[in-house]
Amino acid sequence: MIRKSVQNLKPYTPGEQPKISNIVKLNTNENAYPPSPKVAAALRDFAANALNLYPDPLCVRIREHLAKLHGCEADDIFVGNGSDEVLRLATGAWVEDDGAIGFFNPSYSLYPVLAEIREVPGIALPLPDAPDLPDCLAKAALPKAPDLFFVANPNAPTSTQFPKAAMRKFCERFPGVVVIDEAYAAFADEDCLGLALSLPNAVVCRTMSKAWSLAGIRLGYAIGPRNLIDALYKIKDSYNVNALTQVAALAALSDPDWMLRNRDRIVATRARLARELRAMGWTVADSATNFLWCQPPAPATAEGVMAILRGRGIVVRHFPGPVTGGHVRITIGTDEQTDFLLEVLRKGN
Amino acid sequence: MIRKSVQNLKPYTPGEQPKISNIVKLNTNENAYPPSPKVAAALRDFAANALNLYPDPLCVRIREHLAKLHGCEADDIFVGNGSDEVLRLATGAWVEDDGAIGFFNPSYSLYPVLAEIREVPGIALPLPDAPDLPDCLAKAALPKAPDLFFVANPNAPTSTQFPKAAMRKFCERFPGVVVIDEAYAAFADEDCLGLALSLPNAVVCRTMSKAWSLAGIRLGYAIGPRNLIDALYKIKDSYNVNALTQVAALAALSDPDWMLRNRDRIVATRARLARELRAMGWTVADSATNFLWCQPPAPATAEGVMAILRGRGIVVRHFPGPVTGGHVRITIGTDEQTDFLLEVLRKGN
Repeated sequence: MIRKSVQNLKPYTPGEQPKISNIVKLNTNENAYPPSPKVAAALRDFAANALNLYPDPLCVRIREHLAKLHGCEADDIFVGNGSDEVLRLATGAWVEDDGAIGFFNPSYSLYPVLAEIREVPGIALPLPDAPDLPDCLAKAALPKAPDLFFVANPNAPTSTQFPKAAMRKFCERFPGVVVIDEAYAAFADEDCLGLALSLPNAVVCRTMSKAWSLAGIRLGYAIGPRNLIDALYKIKDSYNVNALTQVAALAALSDPDWMLRNRDRIVATRARLARELRAMGWTVADSATNFLWCQPPAPATAEGVMAILRGRGIVVRHFPGPVTGGHVRITIGTDEQTDFLLEVLRKGN
Repeated sequence: MIRKSVQNLKPYTPGEQPKISNIVKLNTNENAYPPSPKVAAALRDFAANALNLYPDPLCVRIREHLAKLHGCEADDIFVGNGSDEVLRLATGAWVEDDGAIGFFNPSYSLYPVLAEIREVPGIALPLPDAPDLPDCLAKAALPKAPDLFFVANPNAPTSTQFPKAAMRKFCERFPGVVVIDEAYAAFADEDCLGLALSLPNAVVCRTMSKAWSLAGIRLGYAIGPRNLIDALYKIKDSYNVNALTQVAALAALSDPDWMLRNRDRIVATRARLARELRAMGWTVADSATNFLWCQPPAPATAEGVMAILRGRGIVVRHFPGPVTGGHVRITIGTDEQTDFLLEVLRKGN
């Protein structure tokens, strides 16, 4: 009775959410700082009596707000139950049953799972260096181009970003839809929103989970060509974003300065942590995100570092395998957490 | 770039959510009464600072609570972003690409849309009378049984319910998975939960939208055989139920008496409204739900009644078409709303 492809499916594994409360949680790239106090106030003032009614199925107020923020129209925006939903709907809306989905490796490990769930081939190309991005598909000489290509930009877990100019060329040369997954764009110096608003096949995906400190509410959105956005609306669940999330999101969006202040703090801490790690002999990628992708100096290993940190209550993320296994991914914490992390690493070395 | 089946798709149309605030809203089967005050209290006390963290991806506490409520194990339960999500995941988990999805007509108008989104044939059988349910598939003489059959029980929009004994026989004779969509079961005298806990192919779907007065939070769940439930977990979005919904749901579940009191009030009002309408010559189905499926006496028409009601600020639902077009579906409101509805209908006649 169970679909064969689902029987064989290895589901996506979310990063661990440890139950212990005094853990230093640097493993799932959540924001080190809380959301705007306006969120708490909005929830406190919310008339819970009205929860007997269905929520706005189209998130009209949020889209109007986001349209102003991004200089586009509300109809250019799809709002979903986290970018999880947006990415999954992309596979339903823009991929034929005999199509395929492309992505880079290493990148967000959800993409191959989404291809499996959609029951189409997932085509993993090695993550190119930025200059090689525009022609990487031609060089891969695939028998057929995928219908859809996911590019996390900035990329997870490597923390690096393709420049907009290279992304533009990549999109222009790709015959299907390119989803530029900009979960971390707020921590970078540039973004690709302009591509989504000018090219016929580029869609940018954003989330309130990272920069806006709201992973708990599940609010993601896509911006792109209207015919592509319309297709997402046609196949979404009827009431995909609940009323409480809509209230919390609007409250946070009304306080962008709070988000920007936290963003600036995280970017400053990121620079300090990268500098200190490099001084200790680590190899650290130039990060455009709220995490570092880094490798301890031999003979230390990623697994060894993980064990040392865990012994002191610090959780970071490790992705086993030949391409990623030598690295650890460390979410940028508060300054206090960063001091403690560095202290433990110095003693451990 | 858009999948052909999506280009041709006519999406599901949710019932209207009028913007005017003093409307009498009897069109989308929401609960006439607010949720437990414990929901408001829980939201007021919620530490919004923690929204920077991802929610529990598995809704463990809610499942533990529901398991106690229903006398099963937490592992027998899947929790989703409204039963919308549960129903859609069913089409992904238990239907092959060359399979089909069955449902009755009239029934919940989302089912044929879900089949279209899944890009498999949707097979609509005429809604049988209860005695004909067990053999209706054999009599339909389909070339191949569907992989999945959706039975809304009690049914929308007809408000009627198949007895459990007939449902058991239907499930026993069906080779695929039967989803018994019990959104309205709290308003009925019996339910089919026992079938889901004893048969290998029956899954019951519940929601907090109706009896628990929480359409706004989007919380639905499925109970059934563990291998079927596991398949839903494998293909769901990573964090499908947000943290605020989890808090609100737990608060409501901790106050079942509140729900039962509202349920009893609605059942009493339902009896009164049915009696009064029948006294006015209406044909009213025996309702096991929080709404009535009814037909005005000739020469009055459903459209005429709709217009009269709308003129006085009362919105009910009409489903055009040969099978349903003669009826109106009226959500059971408060006693005051019901008095007003009857007054308008009496004058209008």
